[in-house]
Formats: sequence, structure tokens, C-alpha cells
Amino acid sequence: MNNKDFYLEIKHVCKQTGARYGILHTPHGDVEVPMFMPVGTLATVKYLSPDELKELKAGVILSNTYHLWLRPGEDVVANAGGLQNFMKYDGPMLTDSGGFQVFSLSKNRKIEEEGVTFKSHLDGSKLFLSPEKSIDIQNKLGADIIMSLDECAPYPCDYEYMKNSVERTLRWARRGKDAHKNDKQALFGIVQGGEYPDLRKLCAEELVKMDFPGYSIGGTSVGETKEVLYKMLDYTLPYLPKDKPRYLMGVGSYDAILEGVARGVDMFDCVLPTRIARHGALMTSEGRLNIRDKKNEYDLRVIDENCDCYTCKNGYSRSYLRHLYKCDEGYGKRLLSIHNLRFLVKLMEEVRQAIKEDRFGDFKDEFFEKYGLNTTNPRGF
Amino acid sequence: MNNKDFYLEIKHVCKQTGARYGILHTPHGDVEVPMFMPVGTLATVKYLSPDELKELKAGVILSNTYHLWLRPGEDVVANAGGLQNFMKYDGPMLTDSGGFQVFSLSKNRKIEEEGVTFKSHLDGSKLFLSPEKSIDIQNKLGADIIMSLDECAPYPCDYEYMKNSVERTLRWARRGKDAHKNDKQALFGIVQGGEYPDLRKLCAEELVKMDFPGYSIGGTSVGETKEVLYKMLDYTLPYLPKDKPRYLMGVGSYDAILEGVARGVDMFDCVLPTRIARHGALMTSEGRLNIRDKKNEYDLRVIDENCDCYTCKNGYSRSYLRHLYKCDEGYGKRLLSIHNLRFLVKLMEEVRQAIKEDRFGDFKDEFFEKYGLNTTNPRGF
Repeated sequence: MNNKDFYLEIKHVCKQTGARYGILHTPHGDVEVPMFMPVGTLATVKYLSPDELKELKAGVILSNTYHLWLRPGEDVVANAGGLQNFMKYDGPMLTDSGGFQVFSLSKNRKIEEEGVTFKSHLDGSKLFLSPEKSIDIQNKLGADIIMSLDECAPYPCDYEYMKNSVERTLRWARRGKDAHKNDKQALFGIVQGGEYPDLRKLCAEELVKMDFPGYSIGGTSVGETKEVLYKMLDYTLPYLPKDKPRYLMGVGSYDAILEGVARGVDMFDCVLPTRIARHGALMTSEGRLNIRDKKNEYDLRVIDENCDCYTCKNGYSRSYLRHLYKCDEGYGKRLLSIHNLRFLVKLMEEVRQAIKEDRFGDFKDEFFEKYGLNTTNPRGF
Repeated sequence: MNNKDFYLEIKHVCKQTGARYGILHTPHGDVEVPMFMPVGTLATVKYLSPDELKELKAGVILSNTYHLWLRPGEDVVANAGGLQNFMKYDGPMLTDSGGFQVFSLSKNRKIEEEGVTFKSHLDGSKLFLSPEKSIDIQNKLGADIIMSLDECAPYPCDYEYMKNSVERTLRWARRGKDAHKNDKQALFGIVQGGEYPDLRKLCAEELVKMDFPGYSIGGTSVGETKEVLYKMLDYTLPYLPKDKPRYLMGVGSYDAILEGVARGVDMFDCVLPTRIARHGALMTSEGRLNIRDKKNEYDLRVIDENCDCYTCKNGYSRSYLRHLYKCDEGYGKRLLSIHNLRFLVKLMEEVRQAIKEDRFGDFKDEFFEKYGLNTTNPRGF
């Protein structure tokens, strides 16, 4: 990895919290952190154009190695010159390792030292993913940021299982690093260890010894409570280097993002804003709005008058959006997805501003108060 | 109807054919004819934004009275100030009468002098549509151009049935005209009569006596061959006034459009370009392209290098579009719909240019030759 192509420039650390503001430099441009990354599972953020992603200031787009491996196949993407050229998004991109989907979507999986054998969720065909294979696929996909293959252990998970799993994840991280061929792609190590402090510490420290250009926190979004999630962060972040980006995988609820930022996380991703949008649930400055509700039938107000997204800016009414939703129209899914993504991206803009002004602690408290969130009773999306 | 708000200005009649070039003036702007009108069934051209419709120079958008009556209901649209404001399209719009859908989609219909009773295709509920009700709904929807309720008789249809049907359609046209309240909306009469020359003539002449601001040719796209369709045009067009717009309903194949233009038709609409796009069939200057075909898997060419649509202009490859199609991604349907609509709109631009240059007859012959179309064996879409 060439440090000129990819590095985190920390510009400010909040005096109230551990939150950091910085610029992440990548081969496809600079992005500010902390940031939220929209998910484009199959090389498309569902219904949206790259122009729309740019307009809502999406920054990094995440795409899924497992899904692209199955369809259209990494060679098809490589043939187009990589993900960015394939989908015509010229900003930075990130691919995951495929590990999460292997453990959440596939059937009949068998984990061995060499890798994991499992059945495709699409057609049941037998597949094999190893650390080297994951890297090979990701090299072909060509995203700016790629991930080591890890075992995303079940939750809850007993200590002995988790210990063995972490040790294997570390061996896999080393193998992936050795296999990594493209020095324009930043390979992140993934910290596992579940809710066991010593295993998180072990995993983090051993990965740091391998000197990755960034670190992910994995084994999250597996069914744990928010309290457990925050403990996982507390057990992990102190052992990660301050000058490298830190990515909390698959987390996109307000409360978890803000708690992550407060602890020094730089990057977040989640399918949540787009998935709930397609189901008619909208993030607004007044809280959650369910567009399908009968009360919206004649409501000519936009989703959120404080929002600057395409949907709100162009005056699309709740009445029209409800109609599109109820008729299952693709343009409705498009307008609602744009809104939710912009809402979360804008929240991150406000987060960064608060960090720069050393008031992120106050910002977080006010946000939790306004939205009725608290650590034991989170009501975020 | 105020003639200042809505009128056809014929600028040129082709010396080779009966094709006319003109400007149709409407309360929402001027459009050139002959033109193709994209269909936005439920107040949305599926997947597309009004901005995209403008960019591909869509002109008039058609929306369906029957569908909007059922969902969201005409009062919801009226509450937003009419269709244009509801869906945020600021160009001209047209609504049909609901008649075609009543006869093609609904069940258990019973036609009486007063109107037609039938069951909703959505939930089987009992509904009643009369000429007055159709106009009332269309007044609330507020499109620039609206249609009389007609009976779209079955095809084939015996003479006696058709004669009675035409006479009822004429009485319904009169009732609709009397019920029409909004002088900013141009109400068209619809010529029926099937394949019977005297009934087409009768219907046209009687409607012309009622002095509508425009005339539609109905009872088409009901399963007739192209030869029969062209006969229907030949039996109708001579009896329509030269200074009023003529609209051939529901026809969108290349050959039928060009044959219609040659006979002096000004307006066409069809769901065809968007519907086939969603099913992966693309109109190109080289003929039909099925994006799903395996041969496109690694093909980095755009759909049509002679096309100036968003999809082609931005370099989206057949390889990527095939991937989106196979994954049933909404962004694929969006990109493919844009292409087909632009292809047809651009064809109409070329048609108008050929008319202005008195070479539309040659243009049509060359087009038929190039695409392997002929009257007895049409291979158009």
C-alpha cells in the first residue's frame, strides 16, 4: 500500500469526546470523516444514479463482494475496468470480504482452516471462499478499500469458540495480506472477539502488528443489544492506532453512529436508510415518518421542510409519495431512498461541524434528547 | 375551450405524403407534432423523474384516468392542484377517458345507456363510469388534453353491434361535452367504428359537428392486424378537419407510427417502449437488442452508439445493463426505459425534420427497408 494513495489526515479531535474530524485520501478522491457510506449491494445503490449519489454527497459507496462474486462475477466487473467504471461512479468505493454474507445468507456452511464451504443463497450451488479467494475477487472488483476475510462468529458465542475463531481470523488476515496484489487498494484488517475484552484486545493488537492501512470492527449487527455493541467498541478502539481509519461495519442507526463517533470511529455503513425507505419509513428532523399512513393522503407538505434533498427541494408532497408507495412504484422508492440517504449524510455533516467546534458531546446529548434516544432504550431506526 | 389556450398551428404539409408538421399550443407549453407521448399510468412514468423526461424531450405525458380514479383517487390529485403539480411535471399532459381500461382490464362489465358498470381489477369492487363521471374525474385531474368516454368495442365485432356502439359513443361524446367544466382543458372526441368504413365516416362526421378541439382515433390496439389498422385510418382521417390535432390512441410500433404520420396523424402514445425496456428489449439503430442475452455479458459497448440518451451518453455498457437486468434492479429498468423513450422521441424528431424537408415518403421507405418492415409482415416492436 502506497501511503500517498491512501491515508487518513486527522484535522481535529473533539475536546468533549474522542470524536475525530479528518480527511480520508483515496485514489478516487478525498472524503471527510466521520462519514456514512451508502450500500450499493450489486454495484447499484438501488434505484439511484451516480449523479444522485454525488448530489446528496454520498462519498464512499460500499458494494458486496459475496453478491458480486455470484452476480455478475468478478471477471465481468474486471472486464469493465473495475467497479467504478462498471457502475459509472467515479468516487471512492469499498468492498467487504464476503464473510458477513457467507455467515448470514448462505446455507450448510462448513468452516475449516483453509476457508469456508457453503451453498449459494441463490441456487444452492456449492461454493468455497478462502482468504486468498476473497482478496482475489476484491482485487478484480478494484474498490479503493477492501476487507480481510474474517469469521463473523454467531452471537451469542461461548468463549472457547470465539477464541478459536479470533485466532483463525488472525491467520486469515495474514494470508489475505500476503495474497493482496494491488497496491492501489487499501486492505483493512477486521477486529473480531465478540463481547470478550481480552479477545478484542488480542485481535486488535495482533492485526496492528501486521500494519494494515485501516481497521474494521466486525462481529457487530449480529443481534447484540446497543449496550453490548458499545462495550465491543470500548474493548477495541483503545488498541487501534490513532492515525489509521476505523470502520464500524454494518451499523447505521442514529444512536449507534453517534456513540461510535464519540469513541473515535470514522466510517459507518448500513443498508438501513435505503431499505427502510423502500418500505416507506422516513428519517426526518421530527422523527420517523411512515409514508403509507392514511394521514398523509392529502398532506401537501414535503417529507421534511428542513431537508435539502432532491425529493424535498423539488416539492414532492407526502400525498404523492404515499400514492407512489402504495402503488409500489419504482420512482417512489427512488425519491424516498434519496431522502433517507441525504438525511444521514447531512447528519454526518453536522457531526463533523460539531467535532470541529469541540461541541460533539453536547451535539450528541441534544440529539439523543430530541429523538428520545438513550443507551438503554434506543429508539433510533 | 379558449382557442388561445389550445390550438394546432400547422407549419408545413409534406409534399410526398399527407404528413403534417406543426406546433401544438397548450396551457403548459408548446410541443411539436407529430409526436410520441410517453405513458405515466399512475402519475409517474415508471422509474423516471420529470427532469429525465424533460432531458429526453418527452413533451406531452399521458396518464390513465381509470388507474388514477382507483389510486389515489381524483380528489387526492385535485387537492395537489392537478396532475402536473402532483407529479411535478410542468409540461403538457393528457388523460384518457378510462374507457379502454374498463374494456380491457375490468371484469363483469355491463354497458347501458347511462354508462358502464364493472368490477375493479384491483379488488373486485363494483364501479360505475359514465360520460359525465369520466369528465368529472378528468376535470379534477386537470390535464391539458382530455378524452370523451367511448365504448371500445371488442374486435372482431359484427356490424350491428358496432353500429349501436358508435351511436352510443356519439351520444356519450355529446353528454361529455355538455358536462365539461374547465375551459383550460381541451376535450377530444373519439372516433370509433371498427373496420366499417361507413361507421368510421359517420362517427367522424358527427363528432366534427360537435366541434371538438381535437379528435382521437380509437378502437385500435385491440388485436387487429396492421393492415386493418391502416384501413381504419384511411376510413377516418379524410373526415377530420385539417386544422385540428389527430391522435391515434395506444399505437407505438415503428411501422404503425410512420404509417400514421404519412396519413396525417399528429399524436401517438403507447406503453410499449417503457414496458419492453423493463423486460430488457431495446430499440436501437441496428434493430432490436435483448439485453439479457449471454452475448452481452462482457460487451462494453453502449446500447446504441448513435444514441444521445442519458444511458448511452454516460457510457453504461451492455455488460452492466445486462447485470442490472438479471438482478431485477430498478436502476436497470430506469436506464433502459430512458433509452427506449429517447429512441422513439428522437425518431419523431427525425420524422418532423423529414416532413419539413418534403422527404417523409423517402424517410419512411428507407426506415421500413432498414428495419425489414413491410405492411404485410411488420416486424416493428
